[in-house]
Amino acid sequence: MALPPDLPVGAVGDLWSDDLPEAARALLTSAVLCFSRMGFHAATTRDITAAIGLSPGALYVHFPSKEGVLYEIVRTGHERALEAIRSERDDGDTRVYVGRLVTGLVVWHARHHTAARVCQYELAGLSTEHRAAVLELRRRFTAVLRSAVTRGVREGVFDVPDVNRSVRAVVSLGIDLVRWYSIDGADSPEALADYYAELALRMLGATPGTR
Amino acid sequence: MALPPDLPVGAVGDLWSDDLPEAARALLTSAVLCFSRMGFHAATTRDITAAIGLSPGALYVHFPSKEGVLYEIVRTGHERALEAIRSERDDGDTRVYVGRLVTGLVVWHARHHTAARVCQYELAGLSTEHRAAVLELRRRFTAVLRSAVTRGVREGVFDVPDVNRSVRAVVSLGIDLVRWYSIDGADSPEALADYYAELALRMLGATPGTR
Repeated sequence: MALPPDLPVGAVGDLWSDDLPEAARALLTSAVLCFSRMGFHAATTRDITAAIGLSPGALYVHFPSKEGVLYEIVRTGHERALEAIRSERDDGDTRVYVGRLVTGLVVWHARHHTAARVCQYELAGLSTEHRAAVLELRRRFTAVLRSAVTRGVREGVFDVPDVNRSVRAVVSLGIDLVRWYSIDGADSPEALADYYAELALRMLGATPGTR
Repeated sequence: MALPPDLPVGAVGDLWSDDLPEAARALLTSAVLCFSRMGFHAATTRDITAAIGLSPGALYVHFPSKEGVLYEIVRTGHERALEAIRSERDDGDTRVYVGRLVTGLVVWHARHHTAARVCQYELAGLSTEHRAAVLELRRRFTAVLRSAVTRGVREGVFDVPDVNRSVRAVVSLGIDLVRWYSIDGADSPEALADYYAELALRMLGATPGTR
């Protein structure tokens, strides 16, 4: 059931709940790698199971369908990203807090860039119902940022002509790195996150202060 | 050969050279829509040809393979985007010039978001040689922005701790919109471009001036 050592698993395996059987977790990790490389539609249940030495039928012991596997990946990815930014500390200085939210966003997407890429690029493979559930998680994610930015505008520490557009731009900085980021590249998740937090505060026109 | 009226062709058809036969241009447009919806690996030559009422064999009259179709799309898309920013006027004020480069980048990717999405997300479908040619076009694209930003830093009108990271962040703003942009949405390409040009100048720490 172990993944072959040449597969760049990275942090993919950390995502799944310990409540899932080991085989289900191995199937999810294998599916992330297959979907990321081939796309959801082209990757077969045989590709997913063969990579971990199982027969195609083994997938149906744990999941109702290939779409069910994709949904488990995309839902879990979005929930983990939401947890990551919700766990950022808020000491009352909105500039510091927004900087931490951006740091959390960037570190999560850099560290989990392979799974995050599937979460971002393969939404078209989900059923209508599952896609709606994922879009609701995205709304909650954006709402955390929008609420913090709106607070900063009200306090006069941000200069933001259009909160929705600016929040979307800040999110874009974090999301787009799943397209190009490599864990072997020049930037550690943390170093990139610090730089991007500063860029985000500049975009928001943050007044100089404790930032 | 005409595409069915329910296909949201948008600006896809404008991309292709007039030197190509009409059937080749219709095949490229159909392929953009198929790759965008299903992914390169899952879309078959039958899907591409059937959408415009041709038999699968018709594709091979104009292209060597499905990969050849993808390369023509991705190469053309990257060349057009490069032409778009290269055609932006430079009157000597670097802040104004960089604002125009960002405007050109955003307008092009918003207007051509369906083709641009294929250009960004389907690179894995290209042969090693073709991928190298596309990466060279990307380097030229980034070089236009990097050169302008470097000039601004030298002139003292920008405050940029790390030119490569900041240029990549500016490019991310433009590229990520292919993931969410809809031509029927609230933002016109031009309105979004003006807003993003201002965000980019803020990220670059542009001094107040003619911007």
